[in-house]
Amino acid sequence: MRKGPSAMRAGSVLRGPRIDIIQYGMLWMMSSFFDHPILDTHSGQALYRQVYVWIKSGIEKGILVVGERIPPTRELAGLIGLNRTTVSAAYELLENEGLIKSMVGKGTYISARPALSSKSASSSAPEAEISFQSSRPSKELFPLDAFRATCQEVLASPEAIDILQLGSPSGYPPLRRYLLEESQKNGNAKDDDDILITNGCQQALDLIQRVFIANDSDSVMIEDPVYAGVRNVFQRARVTGVPVHYDGIDLDALERFLPRDRPKLLVVTPNFQNPTGATMPVPARLAVLRQANAFGMTVVENNIYGSLRYEGEHLPTIKSLDDSASTLLLGSFSKIAFPGLRVGWIIGPRRMIARLAEAKQWCDLHTDQLSQAVLLRFAESGRLNGHHQQVFEAGLKRLHAVIDACERHLPKGSTFTQPQGGMNVWVRLPDPLDASKLLPQALSRGVSYLPGSHFAVTRPAAQCLRLSFAGLEPERIHAGLAILGRVFAEGLEHDRQRSKFDSEPVVV
Amino acid sequence: MRKGPSAMRAGSVLRGPRIDIIQYGMLWMMSSFFDHPILDTHSGQALYRQVYVWIKSGIEKGILVVGERIPPTRELAGLIGLNRTTVSAAYELLENEGLIKSMVGKGTYISARPALSSKSASSSAPEAEISFQSSRPSKELFPLDAFRATCQEVLASPEAIDILQLGSPSGYPPLRRYLLEESQKNGNAKDDDDILITNGCQQALDLIQRVFIANDSDSVMIEDPVYAGVRNVFQRARVTGVPVHYDGIDLDALERFLPRDRPKLLVVTPNFQNPTGATMPVPARLAVLRQANAFGMTVVENNIYGSLRYEGEHLPTIKSLDDSASTLLLGSFSKIAFPGLRVGWIIGPRRMIARLAEAKQWCDLHTDQLSQAVLLRFAESGRLNGHHQQVFEAGLKRLHAVIDACERHLPKGSTFTQPQGGMNVWVRLPDPLDASKLLPQALSRGVSYLPGSHFAVTRPAAQCLRLSFAGLEPERIHAGLAILGRVFAEGLEHDRQRSKFDSEPVVV
Repeated sequence: MRKGPSAMRAGSVLRGPRIDIIQYGMLWMMSSFFDHPILDTHSGQALYRQVYVWIKSGIEKGILVVGERIPPTRELAGLIGLNRTTVSAAYELLENEGLIKSMVGKGTYISARPALSSKSASSSAPEAEISFQSSRPSKELFPLDAFRATCQEVLASPEAIDILQLGSPSGYPPLRRYLLEESQKNGNAKDDDDILITNGCQQALDLIQRVFIANDSDSVMIEDPVYAGVRNVFQRARVTGVPVHYDGIDLDALERFLPRDRPKLLVVTPNFQNPTGATMPVPARLAVLRQANAFGMTVVENNIYGSLRYEGEHLPTIKSLDDSASTLLLGSFSKIAFPGLRVGWIIGPRRMIARLAEAKQWCDLHTDQLSQAVLLRFAESGRLNGHHQQVFEAGLKRLHAVIDACERHLPKGSTFTQPQGGMNVWVRLPDPLDASKLLPQALSRGVSYLPGSHFAVTRPAAQCLRLSFAGLEPERIHAGLAILGRVFAEGLEHDRQRSKFDSEPVVV
Repeated sequence: MRKGPSAMRAGSVLRGPRIDIIQYGMLWMMSSFFDHPILDTHSGQALYRQVYVWIKSGIEKGILVVGERIPPTRELAGLIGLNRTTVSAAYELLENEGLIKSMVGKGTYISARPALSSKSASSSAPEAEISFQSSRPSKELFPLDAFRATCQEVLASPEAIDILQLGSPSGYPPLRRYLLEESQKNGNAKDDDDILITNGCQQALDLIQRVFIANDSDSVMIEDPVYAGVRNVFQRARVTGVPVHYDGIDLDALERFLPRDRPKLLVVTPNFQNPTGATMPVPARLAVLRQANAFGMTVVENNIYGSLRYEGEHLPTIKSLDDSASTLLLGSFSKIAFPGLRVGWIIGPRRMIARLAEAKQWCDLHTDQLSQAVLLRFAESGRLNGHHQQVFEAGLKRLHAVIDACERHLPKGSTFTQPQGGMNVWVRLPDPLDASKLLPQALSRGVSYLPGSHFAVTRPAAQCLRLSFAGLEPERIHAGLAILGRVFAEGLEHDRQRSKFDSEPVVV
């Protein structure tokens, strides 16, 4: 692995704002962007490529704009402590892509923005070959023919014209009716419950925070660690993280925090929590309800992974156990069908749903009707069930593969959750490993994951990482974990070596 | 017109919570719902039908729930001061619809919720035959075959599978590229601008308030009158309404208010404003920009009606006149294509768009990709242009019809805007008419509109009303305005009669 020069510190050559007069007489102040190189000499990625990615991301993020001058190669090399050839190689890549242009005697300029892509090019990571990063379904399993047929049927129906016209803030009525009836059948909706269609589960959470959180003195309890979208949506509130164990939130901690914080909301994911994969047993679900009643808080039950159980017994939702109308149940088609179509829902007491529907109206009028109608037809036609079978079969194999591979490849002293469904396994590495620090090594060998720090609320999770397995075939899961196992083992070895030298007595 | 009995006051027969023991021994407290009948004896709608709509709306809103007992016909008749036969007729309608059930010896119960419908059944208004209420495109003009073909092409393309997978918060990249390039061609985007795709224009406004409004000491200026969705989205801010005249916002008022309020945002709709139809001439657009620069505020230019110009000359957007990067331009497919597909956008300086995209991510991850891809294809294939031609032709005829009909039928002393596009005309009735008070009369004759009070920010607009003409064929526009003309003339006559009697000297 290549070691970076020790001089690689920002601003080591030029200090203060750099002013430069270009030939047509305009005064340019060079962007301070170049004072803060984002380079990692330990990442194993070639430095010229890192420089290229760094500048490209600056253009993409709008920090460097078209027409802006960038430093000559010699100057930038000095500034960031690299060889001029390294910088020249990066500029060459940028120029080949048409992003910069060198004009003799006039310097080098940003000449275009990178072509837009759904993947952010701003990451300094090379494209991982085996990605455990994303908790989303495998697109190879999408039943495209069935989807095409569904769209065709929807658009051939007499309702087609009304789908194109402005709809209702509460959602497409036939979809609401279908989901509410299904939920009543399986106990997830009571007779006096209602349903609101949202743009996926993220919007459900956002609408809930709008309606329930008046200001930053209102308190919310969320799981810790938790999916960043949950943490970020409650920015306006006072947030307490309740630790999550393999069997869900820590009930003792919850009991301790409740009298102190008196939260308005408790957001829990009882099935296959993201990122831990943890599932709460029934007594824990009942305990949460008792606490909700005792403290007058509303339980927000995020159940988007609930129907992704590949083995073991189905557990009743908190909502179905709740006789006190204090639970809002969130569902979505994203994990079980197509996340590109943004359709989720909230089921709860009619008065709460009415308030949420009003908030929805001023957020975005209503959820897209084409997708609502298509997903309804996909479900009613039985195609969703057929797709489920495929997803379950694949999911079970992938789940077993990830657990087997964790057992086989993770270093001694590692622990990991063993869910019976969902998309994620949570790994805790042995002391003193840090998952963030090891990520560049993993990336350099073509494997990616999300480090625990990404999901931390208040408790650091530096030793932890999330493995999202649902998008990978078993052999790739095994191959990826074999690589990760080596990276982590080397990390331990590296630490042992250092400790050995550290422990040498100083000769005085 | 039928006159209601004078005894029709709430709670005139029973007072306090009514307690009733039903046969199976449960204690029921009858809903206080029945203490507050929503009936209008002057509306001209049959009273049995009003009672039916009132109770049905109570069930729909969740105030009356399934299993709940409702008063016997005799009791309710006494309670609200109507004949028992009137109440019986209402109950019969409800029973025919399966919403209530009478059981001999056990009373009458709510037995089901009304079937969901996209139109709220809670309105006590009968279905208007000629509706000037909704500012939306005519669904009869939707080119369903072209839309079907578009969907088919999108789903046959190699991109189909990626459309179904999770997308980018900024929007579907090919759509962003297309819209940005189009906007650059017509001057609406500069080289260093970027674009964010939103769920229609309403979400664009919501994201802007999230990013720009920190708390209720931050000020926003909006037009007065204005579409309620603009007013409601800025609930968190200090809001000032700037009067709108036929040529857009009152620049003198703006100049007076600015030093006092120092707003962060000014939200304007320079083309065919909703509800007034007002259009700002170019000097006014430039004046707004000068003020924006002088006071460091951002102009939010809502241009959703901009391309619906049926006649006259196209005017440059404020955004295209802005060299100071202080304008955000909002666009949408809703008014020009299909409002059921929720796709709009914001074009503006890259740094602002980056902040808005981050907010978007925590609102709902991203906009539905199926609709984004379909609308892109609809535009790129030339079908959107073809559809435009149809919409323009129809729009021009409807615009001329509404202006002709206003001239012909509105009472002397009325004024109304005469836009060259869009969907709305704003009418001011002569003193002392009140558009809200006259609405029931109009409804009873099958014509609806939205009264000015619906759009008021701080200045009452009781004499005003909005006529949305885009969804009505010329002959219906003429027929509707003939009816409205008679309703308003009768209102004036009624007032004259009353004044005549009022002016009689008291005989002492």
